[in-house]
Amino acid sequence: MKKIRAAIVGYGNIGKYVLEALQAAPDFEIAGIVRRDASNIPAELKEYPVTGDIASLQQVDVAILCTPTRKVEAFAEKALALGINTVDSFDIHTQIWELKCHLDTVAKQHNAVSITAAGWDPGSDSIVRALMQACAPKGITYTNFGPGMSMGHTVAVKAVDGVKAALSMTIPLGTGIHRRMVYIELKDGYKFEDVAKNIKDDPYFVNDETHVMQVENVDDLLDMGHGVHMTRKGVSGKTQNQLFEFNMKINNPALTGQVLVSVARASMLQKPGCYTMIEIPVIDMLYGNKESLIKHLV
Amino acid sequence: MKKIRAAIVGYGNIGKYVLEALQAAPDFEIAGIVRRDASNIPAELKEYPVTGDIASLQQVDVAILCTPTRKVEAFAEKALALGINTVDSFDIHTQIWELKCHLDTVAKQHNAVSITAAGWDPGSDSIVRALMQACAPKGITYTNFGPGMSMGHTVAVKAVDGVKAALSMTIPLGTGIHRRMVYIELKDGYKFEDVAKNIKDDPYFVNDETHVMQVENVDDLLDMGHGVHMTRKGVSGKTQNQLFEFNMKINNPALTGQVLVSVARASMLQKPGCYTMIEIPVIDMLYGNKESLIKHLV
Repeated sequence: MKKIRAAIVGYGNIGKYVLEALQAAPDFEIAGIVRRDASNIPAELKEYPVTGDIASLQQVDVAILCTPTRKVEAFAEKALALGINTVDSFDIHTQIWELKCHLDTVAKQHNAVSITAAGWDPGSDSIVRALMQACAPKGITYTNFGPGMSMGHTVAVKAVDGVKAALSMTIPLGTGIHRRMVYIELKDGYKFEDVAKNIKDDPYFVNDETHVMQVENVDDLLDMGHGVHMTRKGVSGKTQNQLFEFNMKINNPALTGQVLVSVARASMLQKPGCYTMIEIPVIDMLYGNKESLIKHLV
Repeated sequence: MKKIRAAIVGYGNIGKYVLEALQAAPDFEIAGIVRRDASNIPAELKEYPVTGDIASLQQVDVAILCTPTRKVEAFAEKALALGINTVDSFDIHTQIWELKCHLDTVAKQHNAVSITAAGWDPGSDSIVRALMQACAPKGITYTNFGPGMSMGHTVAVKAVDGVKAALSMTIPLGTGIHRRMVYIELKDGYKFEDVAKNIKDDPYFVNDETHVMQVENVDDLLDMGHGVHMTRKGVSGKTQNQLFEFNMKINNPALTGQVLVSVARASMLQKPGCYTMIEIPVIDMLYGNKESLIKHLV
């Protein structure tokens, strides 16, 4: 069996879990790792090529983009231009359609495949939302996140003047309403009350119930567990009160890393263009032959 | 917008709910209903052509097969030979692969599309199982059914000598283990203890905890609600204890009817051949344009 040769682009939190998911996948081999500082090679990367430029890696089938979300577009363009498939977990919901359209053009120009917004939300949750809608076209789906650390909200807190370190936890209150529990270390010379007020007035927090607490050491609180609780109450045909629910409790970057590897596999089976996860058959994400997968799963 | 013209083949319990789902779908129109006794036309079918032969209906795009599961193959062959797409909810899990391969050949010969095993299990549950495996490739998925009426088990009880009427309820005990609660009306001249023993010894029941109860009127107990509780505890990459759960509480034939209509829509977008639901993109099952679906669901 010819293995799929994957490059990991960006080696932060997600990149580390992608490495593990690739090592655990029987049908992949690691073509190399692309990072800003290619001289920084931790022990677990010793056996792989590490480079600052994806063009220097040999025979890459797919680039798994583990960069900050705002850098996805540039890295995707570069890989696609080399004829390399890309997958990413771009997570700014309001900009996914635009990015998809742009990468679709680039991918088709270079006869490559791109799968975007492929983490768990957007990503696997999107498939569940679409499936629930196929089962009950009329109704409301609520996606409740947490309890777990919100990356975006934590970054927003860190940008507030006087904050030395921060953690913003998302607590689900049901029907898509969330409480924000914000833990901060204060810089010297700042008053907690002032900083707390500025956090609560930030656009990220102003519409949610937000509690700010001062702690001695934010790092002691960090845990990468996260959760989702999705519900839909809807109508199948003309029959009311059809109830659907999806829950998960997961290590956040580990699931993102696994989904990226699963869609990297799927990228090998699509026609040139850019796709979100709801546009590709779920079976394409799985290792194994079609007959045994269908016999086992259908 | 040109509407998709669907024929309902078989007008029992599922067929009635398919009719409602078609009436509720903005992009379908009903080409007609095929039934054994075409002279039997209930009030709700008065405005549609009712016939004994699908070939006599005009411009059918897709035939929605609502026949008993063992008759699916013959009706699918006939419709496909006319170049009409077919969808069915064939539910004998061990025979799906074989049926799919056969219908794939027939569909390709006639440039048509068939989607098989498209109810809720097999069907929408299959997509959830496949998705959970994409998220955590190692681990165990348990599918727990009920509480709800099992069609297959009820038919098996009815076949036991001395049973006048029957209902077999499936009660989930977790980890895919089920209790069978069997309610029967007894024919005159039979001893309850003997009939109950024969039911418990039947292959359908011999491996499950089974309780048989005699009642005066089975019909008073009938309710078409059903449920599913699916769990997976698995490994994403090398990270253990990733927890996934899917639940639903639904009107059983209403959901089957809706899923059939959703995949009938998807059949219009696939290349010739036969597919199970895990082989088609979930977005293809939804009404609406791609841009708004992706913006809303991803």
